[in-house]
Amino acid sequence: MAACAIGIDYGTLSARAVLIDTSTGEELASSEYAYPHAVIDARLPGGAVLPPDWALQHPRDYLEALEHVVPDVLRQSDTDPGRVVGIGTDFTGCTVLPVKADGTPLCFLPEFENNPHAYVKLWKHHAAQDKASRLNEIAAARREPWLSYYGGKISSEWNIPKLWQVLDEAPEVYAAMDRWIEAADWIVWQLTGTETRNACTAGYKAMYNKNAGFPANDFYKALDPRFGGVAERFFNLPVIPPGTKAGGVTPDMAAKLGLKPGTAVAAGILDAHVCVPAVGIGAPGTMLEVIGTSGCHMLMGTEEIAVPGICGVVADGILPGFYGYEAGQCCVGDHFAWFVENCVPAAYAREAEEKGETLHALLREKAEKLRPGESGLLALDWWNGNRSVLVDADLSGALLGLTLRTKPEEIYRALIEATAYGTREIIENYRAHGIAVDAFVAAGGISQKDPMAMQIYADVLNLPIGLAGSENGPAYGSAIFAAVAAGEEAGGYGDIFSAARALGRRKESVYRPSPENAAAYDTLYAEYKVLHDYFGRGANDVMKRLKGKRALA
Amino acid sequence: MAACAIGIDYGTLSARAVLIDTSTGEELASSEYAYPHAVIDARLPGGAVLPPDWALQHPRDYLEALEHVVPDVLRQSDTDPGRVVGIGTDFTGCTVLPVKADGTPLCFLPEFENNPHAYVKLWKHHAAQDKASRLNEIAAARREPWLSYYGGKISSEWNIPKLWQVLDEAPEVYAAMDRWIEAADWIVWQLTGTETRNACTAGYKAMYNKNAGFPANDFYKALDPRFGGVAERFFNLPVIPPGTKAGGVTPDMAAKLGLKPGTAVAAGILDAHVCVPAVGIGAPGTMLEVIGTSGCHMLMGTEEIAVPGICGVVADGILPGFYGYEAGQCCVGDHFAWFVENCVPAAYAREAEEKGETLHALLREKAEKLRPGESGLLALDWWNGNRSVLVDADLSGALLGLTLRTKPEEIYRALIEATAYGTREIIENYRAHGIAVDAFVAAGGISQKDPMAMQIYADVLNLPIGLAGSENGPAYGSAIFAAVAAGEEAGGYGDIFSAARALGRRKESVYRPSPENAAAYDTLYAEYKVLHDYFGRGANDVMKRLKGKRALA
Repeated sequence: MAACAIGIDYGTLSARAVLIDTSTGEELASSEYAYPHAVIDARLPGGAVLPPDWALQHPRDYLEALEHVVPDVLRQSDTDPGRVVGIGTDFTGCTVLPVKADGTPLCFLPEFENNPHAYVKLWKHHAAQDKASRLNEIAAARREPWLSYYGGKISSEWNIPKLWQVLDEAPEVYAAMDRWIEAADWIVWQLTGTETRNACTAGYKAMYNKNAGFPANDFYKALDPRFGGVAERFFNLPVIPPGTKAGGVTPDMAAKLGLKPGTAVAAGILDAHVCVPAVGIGAPGTMLEVIGTSGCHMLMGTEEIAVPGICGVVADGILPGFYGYEAGQCCVGDHFAWFVENCVPAAYAREAEEKGETLHALLREKAEKLRPGESGLLALDWWNGNRSVLVDADLSGALLGLTLRTKPEEIYRALIEATAYGTREIIENYRAHGIAVDAFVAAGGISQKDPMAMQIYADVLNLPIGLAGSENGPAYGSAIFAAVAAGEEAGGYGDIFSAARALGRRKESVYRPSPENAAAYDTLYAEYKVLHDYFGRGANDVMKRLKGKRALA
Repeated sequence: MAACAIGIDYGTLSARAVLIDTSTGEELASSEYAYPHAVIDARLPGGAVLPPDWALQHPRDYLEALEHVVPDVLRQSDTDPGRVVGIGTDFTGCTVLPVKADGTPLCFLPEFENNPHAYVKLWKHHAAQDKASRLNEIAAARREPWLSYYGGKISSEWNIPKLWQVLDEAPEVYAAMDRWIEAADWIVWQLTGTETRNACTAGYKAMYNKNAGFPANDFYKALDPRFGGVAERFFNLPVIPPGTKAGGVTPDMAAKLGLKPGTAVAAGILDAHVCVPAVGIGAPGTMLEVIGTSGCHMLMGTEEIAVPGICGVVADGILPGFYGYEAGQCCVGDHFAWFVENCVPAAYAREAEEKGETLHALLREKAEKLRPGESGLLALDWWNGNRSVLVDADLSGALLGLTLRTKPEEIYRALIEATAYGTREIIENYRAHGIAVDAFVAAGGISQKDPMAMQIYADVLNLPIGLAGSENGPAYGSAIFAAVAAGEEAGGYGDIFSAARALGRRKESVYRPSPENAAAYDTLYAEYKVLHDYFGRGANDVMKRLKGKRALA
């Protein structure tokens, strides 16, 4: 009776589980559960209207997902719970919530259910940009030693700006909460009854450093005097690396999920980072990009180098013993979805309907025939701001080269090309700082569903692109970490490297760059770079001023 | 029995006639005829495929239109032909064709019917930009005295670049043609049997100057040695001012149209310029913009000032005795039509259908609710290049400030605002060169049909906007010139000023700027101006390079 492990990927709109055989990696069953509240960005469940740039979630959705997907994969594969040696989870982040000492989210309490600050602030909650900007000024002025390891700038998506927004806008919530916890750690707590903090979210989202710990109290106080004591209150907790066993499943939770009590639960980890061993990466030089609604780029290193504009470099942040480098793009799939929803004419909708295909497929069909540069269009992929290498949520999208002959498929392709240029900018930035990138693997929805986009990426990056072998990439990665948390004796693995060697999967097909297209894209990328720097590095801050006017109007 | 006059406006897609009472201006009947070949920009009637940027017309359409609309207005109003004292025509321009000595267009001849250069090159034929650029270099190097009166740059839309394209690409057409004539003059020739050249198209499109005449032969030869003798061959013709009687209707044509032989025919004139007396302008200070598919801005002056970036200043070009200043925008209505056709999602199409309104009306309904700056968007209105004040067909459109929350109506409004900023740029440019603009009148389709656009123009320009009183603006203007050509004794007028005083019409309603919106638009226009200069004045020629790549791909 071979051992099994369950991995659960908590994504932006749904949770997806996979049950694998820990010796072969065979995926025995998978299950998905869409969050009933999805992303709360217009109104709270009680009706309260949210301001622009807010993005919340409801933590009850996470529990419901757990109770749906775990029994479902067991049932589907007719698996004896006794075979399941470990369960692992990964989460979006920084996706963070205020809870009581017993783990109860504040939004579960009647007195807070209409207070938006009592809910989960999702990774793409962008309403704390003013806090992030101020934090960056103060940290720079104080020469905080950790700053350079986060590319010199903290994102508004991260932990402290979001916490500061609570302190400033909802002091009653700040006063009432006992913990301020990543959903990644909260769900592990719900499974095990044991509170832990994982090295990945702590390192990438809350400035935790393996040697120096979390930022010191005087830094928080310099941000806001009301932050007194915050380090002790919320941050001085032991941090465990990915793959560590955080605890065993509680009897209560085991009963709800149909698992054996005490089943090993892996430490939390971010949904992108968890994919690194899933595609078999265990060393420097190969970048993994998870390309979904947004893009997340991960790379291993043996040195701690301060690279500007990256999201962070964190010891043990991805694989123990390596410095994990992360960079990111704020919108990729979201970008194309926005276009399809808002900018494609009825004639195309009719044509897609007649052909029985999606609008994405129709646009791809038309856009595939275009050669690089043929549309004359160039876009800046900042519809949701820029994460790397400019780290600025107040930048916005731009499109140039429009004429009366411009067709929707040309714009669609230009948007895809723009996200590829954004990835190239990230790679060039690493290379300029002495970190090699000589191979590229793609995971996530776009990599599986959009061959045109992947070919464009191969041509723009001028690198062959390998693909994740599992369609349940992050969930598969979580199952690998679950097998490591279970340990070798239980039928799992002694460390993540042996697990990655045994279970890491890539597809056989590889997208190879066309030399002709790569040359054309070199020229177009050079144009992109000039505009990127003009609008993104202070020569013309028009995008920020326009965004300011939007907020005022 | 009161005298009548007929005015015919040859527009881009149709010809429209109006029959007026010359003493009261009452419009007794109107008639429109859509050109069967419309704009030929994809294939010739025989099937030959046209390259990008071409825009042709078929001259037979102009004759068919004449034979339809003239009898139609007479029949509709049951008017005795004996009452019609004059007929006047206006035309788009530079809209120009090669013909034989007897006036037969080359494209009527079987041996040329499949040669694209044998057809009418429509004003918006943009395939001679390389010729225009070279011409501008050579004219500047030679310090041609006329250059500064055309803003320092000749447009690819004008006469010589189009003729040079024929010479270079179709020497057989160049060799076979006896005349190279504006359609404005060709249609008058067809009516009267007498060949004339009018001061308006000669001045604005072929660099004719009242004192200096047309450019001299050595200039053409400096462009291309094969141009030897071109001045004598095509340009050394007497030029007559607007309102002059070009001749009388020939017996043949009179029979076809149902008019009295000998009926006075006015000299040709451009379709925008003809509107100046139609809205009662007879003096400096008041700008008229005709806002249709493109925009044309006219202003009277008492001095000949070399203003950079305008289309031209021409003595007698609009009203005899004044210097007529013209500037323009390459696309206005075309711009909005492109958007509606290519960028509005099916959900909006359904909503418009359910409400029984056009997509334009639906977008307007939604966009009207937005305040200036609320969308956070800013556009450069160069989808069809820039006519004034940059005079560059190779510029292209741009849109900034896009986010995942951007809605179609926000983009629609941003495009309208961009065309208003373009008009403001033209006005500021005149003011900077000592020419006052203190009143503004709008004519053309957009001015009549789009109250939201007109209010945005009033707010952006911070000027009250008066409106043309006739919905048949240019045709009405042509009828006024027809009455002047007929003369006072026949029941017309002795000069255009008395005719304009008697017959010029404006609506009672005026769009007045809101001080609050005007202040907001001052800020946004300042942002537009920075981008306008960055992309338009050489700091970053990315648009030209992208367009170059488009042509190569």
